[in-house]
Amino acid sequence: MRTVVLREPGQFEMRERDRPEPADDEVLVAVRDVGICGSDVHYYEHGRIGDYVVEDPLVLGHESAGDVVAVGENVETLVPGARVTLEPGVPCRQCRHCKRGEYHLCTDVEFMATPPHDGAFAEYVAWPADFVYELPEAVSLREGALCEPLSVGIHACRRGDVGVGDTVLVTGAGPIGMLAMEAARAAGATDVLVSDVVGSKLDRALDRGADRVIDVTETDLDSAVDEYTDGVGADVVVEASGAEPSIESTLDAVRRGGTVVLVGLADEAEVPLDVLEIIDNELDVHGSFRYANTYDAAVDLLADGTVDVEGIVDFTDPLEEIDAAFRRSMEPDTVKGMISID
Amino acid sequence: MRTVVLREPGQFEMRERDRPEPADDEVLVAVRDVGICGSDVHYYEHGRIGDYVVEDPLVLGHESAGDVVAVGENVETLVPGARVTLEPGVPCRQCRHCKRGEYHLCTDVEFMATPPHDGAFAEYVAWPADFVYELPEAVSLREGALCEPLSVGIHACRRGDVGVGDTVLVTGAGPIGMLAMEAARAAGATDVLVSDVVGSKLDRALDRGADRVIDVTETDLDSAVDEYTDGVGADVVVEASGAEPSIESTLDAVRRGGTVVLVGLADEAEVPLDVLEIIDNELDVHGSFRYANTYDAAVDLLADGTVDVEGIVDFTDPLEEIDAAFRRSMEPDTVKGMISID
Amino acid sequence: MRTVVLREPGQFEMRERDRPEPADDEVLVAVRDVGICGSDVHYYEHGRIGDYVVEDPLVLGHESAGDVVAVGENVETLVPGARVTLEPGVPCRQCRHCKRGEYHLCTDVEFMATPPHDGAFAEYVAWPADFVYELPEAVSLREGALCEPLSVGIHACRRGDVGVGDTVLVTGAGPIGMLAMEAARAAGATDVLVSDVVGSKLDRALDRGADRVIDVTETDLDSAVDEYTDGVGADVVVEASGAEPSIESTLDAVRRGGTVVLVGLADEAEVPLDVLEIIDNELDVHGSFRYANTYDAAVDLLADGTVDVEGIVDFTDPLEEIDAAFRRSMEPDTVKGMISID
Amino acid sequence: MRTVVLREPGQFEMRERDRPEPADDEVLVAVRDVGICGSDVHYYEHGRIGDYVVEDPLVLGHESAGDVVAVGENVETLVPGARVTLEPGVPCRQCRHCKRGEYHLCTDVEFMATPPHDGAFAEYVAWPADFVYELPEAVSLREGALCEPLSVGIHACRRGDVGVGDTVLVTGAGPIGMLAMEAARAAGATDVLVSDVVGSKLDRALDRGADRVIDVTETDLDSAVDEYTDGVGADVVVEASGAEPSIESTLDAVRRGGTVVLVGLADEAEVPLDVLEIIDNELDVHGSFRYANTYDAAVDLLADGTVDVEGIVDFTDPLEEIDAAFRRSMEPDTVKGMISID
Repeated sequence: MRTVVLREPGQFEMRERDRPEPADDEVLVAVRDVGICGSDVHYYEHGRIGDYVVEDPLVLGHESAGDVVAVGENVETLVPGARVTLEPGVPCRQCRHCKRGEYHLCTDVEFMATPPHDGAFAEYVAWPADFVYELPEAVSLREGALCEPLSVGIHACRRGDVGVGDTVLVTGAGPIGMLAMEAARAAGATDVLVSDVVGSKLDRALDRGADRVIDVTETDLDSAVDEYTDGVGADVVVEASGAEPSIESTLDAVRRGGTVVLVGLADEAEVPLDVLEIIDNELDVHGSFRYANTYDAAVDLLADGTVDVEGIVDFTDPLEEIDAAFRRSMEPDTVKGMISID
Repeated sequence: MRTVVLREPGQFEMRERDRPEPADDEVLVAVRDVGICGSDVHYYEHGRIGDYVVEDPLVLGHESAGDVVAVGENVETLVPGARVTLEPGVPCRQCRHCKRGEYHLCTDVEFMATPPHDGAFAEYVAWPADFVYELPEAVSLREGALCEPLSVGIHACRRGDVGVGDTVLVTGAGPIGMLAMEAARAAGATDVLVSDVVGSKLDRALDRGADRVIDVTETDLDSAVDEYTDGVGADVVVEASGAEPSIESTLDAVRRGGTVVLVGLADEAEVPLDVLEIIDNELDVHGSFRYANTYDAAVDLLADGTVDVEGIVDFTDPLEEIDAAFRRSMEPDTVKGMISID
Repeated sequence: MRTVVLREPGQFEMRERDRPEPADDEVLVAVRDVGICGSDVHYYEHGRIGDYVVEDPLVLGHESAGDVVAVGENVETLVPGARVTLEPGVPCRQCRHCKRGEYHLCTDVEFMATPPHDGAFAEYVAWPADFVYELPEAVSLREGALCEPLSVGIHACRRGDVGVGDTVLVTGAGPIGMLAMEAARAAGATDVLVSDVVGSKLDRALDRGADRVIDVTETDLDSAVDEYTDGVGADVVVEASGAEPSIESTLDAVRRGGTVVLVGLADEAEVPLDVLEIIDNELDVHGSFRYANTYDAAVDLLADGTVDVEGIVDFTDPLEEIDAAFRRSMEPDTVKGMISID
Repeated sequence: MRTVVLREPGQFEMRERDRPEPADDEVLVAVRDVGICGSDVHYYEHGRIGDYVVEDPLVLGHESAGDVVAVGENVETLVPGARVTLEPGVPCRQCRHCKRGEYHLCTDVEFMATPPHDGAFAEYVAWPADFVYELPEAVSLREGALCEPLSVGIHACRRGDVGVGDTVLVTGAGPIGMLAMEAARAAGATDVLVSDVVGSKLDRALDRGADRVIDVTETDLDSAVDEYTDGVGADVVVEASGAEPSIESTLDAVRRGGTVVLVGLADEAEVPLDVLEIIDNELDVHGSFRYANTYDAAVDLLADGTVDVEGIVDFTDPLEEIDAAFRRSMEPDTVKGMISID
């Protein structure tokens, strides 16, 4: 089967590999659509993310959907022909985290496209059936693939306990910010504000239903939020930019007793935060890492038409043009590129 | 000013009373729209609800909205001319319940139209400013009045912890059931099933977006839910009918580990419940009584257009025709009648 | 190895069986101490519990501790010689319940001494290493075995969200009631009331630190609780008797906005409950089924000396005298009997 | 009556003032015992805390207990002669925070000894009856006064959701750290570690039942916690020192998915925090500001003997020697000084 491996930074290579056999609890999926994530691009550019270093040629891609073509002998929930999306992280199922239902915190998780685990830019992937979710007719494969970033948004909103009538500020209008906005609306937020430094992204957020967009190159975030909320602040801030000034400013933009969810990965680990503000205003600052138990909800939201994910896609290129697709993904106004596999 | 009092069961009487003066922390509201609630009709028919007995002539009505015409001297949040809705229960502000934020459980609450406290079928009401909520332009006074039953629905969904992707069964398609459906959708429910014994109400629920309606005079509730959910059951059941068979069946219709919210007032206090099912399936059975901290969210949902409340209104009669309006409200296919006051 | 099987109601038989081999993820445990649970006694008397019928000879016992004598090849957490307690239910690890951290609700759980799964009245048991917990020196094997009923108590208190300063009523002074009392104290309850119909058990509860015991053959439960709480009611009621009058009375004994936890299995499934009280007082009625994620806490509490479990043991008999032990366990004033295996 | 006012930094002055009259909802309390809080000492030294500046002579002291000597006409819960403790912050009772049960976040709270509101270093204080709590016989007035810092500890543990079997690290062994340790134990923590830079305080923490004390002038905090927890980290860290290095190190000392509670007021507002660690380990960082709904629990814990507060008191001086008492409170090994009023 065809795969694309990252050999070293900036160098993709098409490779033929043996088509995997599904184990007893696995299904074999013919991959059709794969989203390009910021982490894929980061590996492409730098060959590493923090301690995760690409040492052997690695297949990237972890936002994927396709068709089941074979099933292992214990699999009863799926049959060949099923259209599915794949949850890319498979945990150990035995540790304290797994048993508590926070399997995304399992330290032995095997996550697609994270060294040394291959991802989904490949014709076929064999995957545990219980991390493969059938898509109803109303949900396209492309939408299925985007259940992954949507899951990040859903999880962030759960971590912020977004509820009916809430005012939510999303800092950063990239794919995670855009889908956190969708997830916040789905959870009942009635007012969503979005900030970014790229005007075209803010225009898009506005088109997609943001109540207020804030270009932080021109407008002070805190003042804009204060004006919108009559000085109260946002109930929840979802920080999806990873930019240090944005992270710092979340503490001013959130209301007393409110919650800041940090989901955008910062370039700099250490950010000076006003701890007195955290204490005096009794803030909750919650890290949000990937997701757990979100795929069913993501599929349901898409089937219901509650959220729109396709609208964040800028372009879809075939697997053969992955190089161009990655370069285009690095442009500042791209929100989401995708790869299709025949 | 004009008021209508209930003298004894079935007997309304127009009365002139002195227009109240707002105290320092109160506003004076010229009432414009008032919904007719099942409890109003119950007092009208029976002169009592449980231990609450109408002994002196009582003004009914607690779903109200109108215009501020005067404000007490400490009031800074509202000015004459503001269009407002009134939260009808004012608690003591001092007891343990009030301090814990569950002020609706305050045993000294003064609730409109609950003996001995008068309600809103009157030209003017003076009310504490902090229980009066301004309506933005996008929200009509009629919608404002219906913030009250919408609040019951929002609170029930909070008590059920309805979240994104949930399947919710609402038993009973009266006003509370209809608005619980709206609140469930707003909180992210992607599948809402509604059951009732009146076909016309089910048709209306279907028109309003129910995914599945169940006429329990023809179809077994449990089987219908099982079929819809592949045998899993609903994540949350909101019991809004108060009918004993419906209450009993909720325990079969909810999924293992799910939540049943009881909000519809039963005629019979004692209902045989399968406690082994509660234990073996580790169910949560939550009473839901009125609401607290819902009005801001209700107004926001209406302003946002997320929920529809006007569509449940069958008719609006002037205060002078309140008798006819109450009789019409007693017909089985009426969902919500309203009274307007010039 | 020696085992005892239940052939039919009232008939135990010593049997030699092959000593099991631990699978790769399992450890082999030489069982030393096993508690006799009410469910064991129920199978002994009736040959069934609800739909679970003893058709083939069954090894009873699921409250066990012993010494690790061999480990499977993947096991890194335990070594031969370790003193351990065994969590008796092993779930599928793949279903929605398992993934949400509520693995005790997994419908494919394999639970010791529940047909067709054998239990621990045997010289050796092979068990998945991640459901085997090492005991520190300060914890005896007998205490280790009693981590199981203690877990039931811990879980019930979690289901009731028992917290610092709470007043907790425990109805039923059997082993679950006694250990729910311990768990409630550990979680910060400052006032614990215990009711039962057997005077000797109440004396024992009093000796073990109950603040007030109530003999419901002589005293009205509701009045006694009202008197103790100045009419407020208990914050949490843990119903551990399974007796219908007790279940019914919990709704009167709990405070407005409080929580009733049902854990004692009723003989009659259907109990008439006052649903108006559930609604008007906005009660939470929570089923509590077994436990999940409790064993670490149970071991820690024992090591810390925070709770006492040994004091509930009435007698310990050798495996050879299991018949007498079961008969003695059926006497009304027995709280907990144990079996030791050489 | 006699009072002591702070005229300017370092200058107390005895003053005669009119004895206050209790309003209708108030009681008049003859103050007997008052604790000296770090904030009192800070005002004494610097004349301000942040934006709160002592402009007019201010009565300090907010940890107080005494005897009721008169009651306003609406007061039904207390009678003259009652021994009581005073909750020092009285909120507006009308804002969103008050209605949600988080009245400590009310921005109009009147808090004793915070300019311009006088405190309790006075013979008499008139105070709203619902913020005055009767002490049972088993609780001394001195313990009653210390319900205030104990409340800070209880609230911090609630903010950290400390539960049964938890391992809790408390950084800082001053009064808040000491009482957070007590509150953590009361909530079920089985392992409590305490760090500080003052050896005598650590000795005291050890005497009071800490499982492990860490002198961070000699030992690396992270390593010590790792060693104690086998590399897992603490379930909850309560940061009670306010020291920047300590605040920073909490993120390393807490386990994946754990909670850091910030309660100690930092001298420097801005502290560099490793946000990648917050995200990757999905940490909760919770500010903890004063407390709400804690006094009942505090009194119950004291009456029950569950917690010890008197043991943190180093000395008690009469009101006349307040100068010396404050100077002694500034010494590094003092944990808690108290003032008694005849």
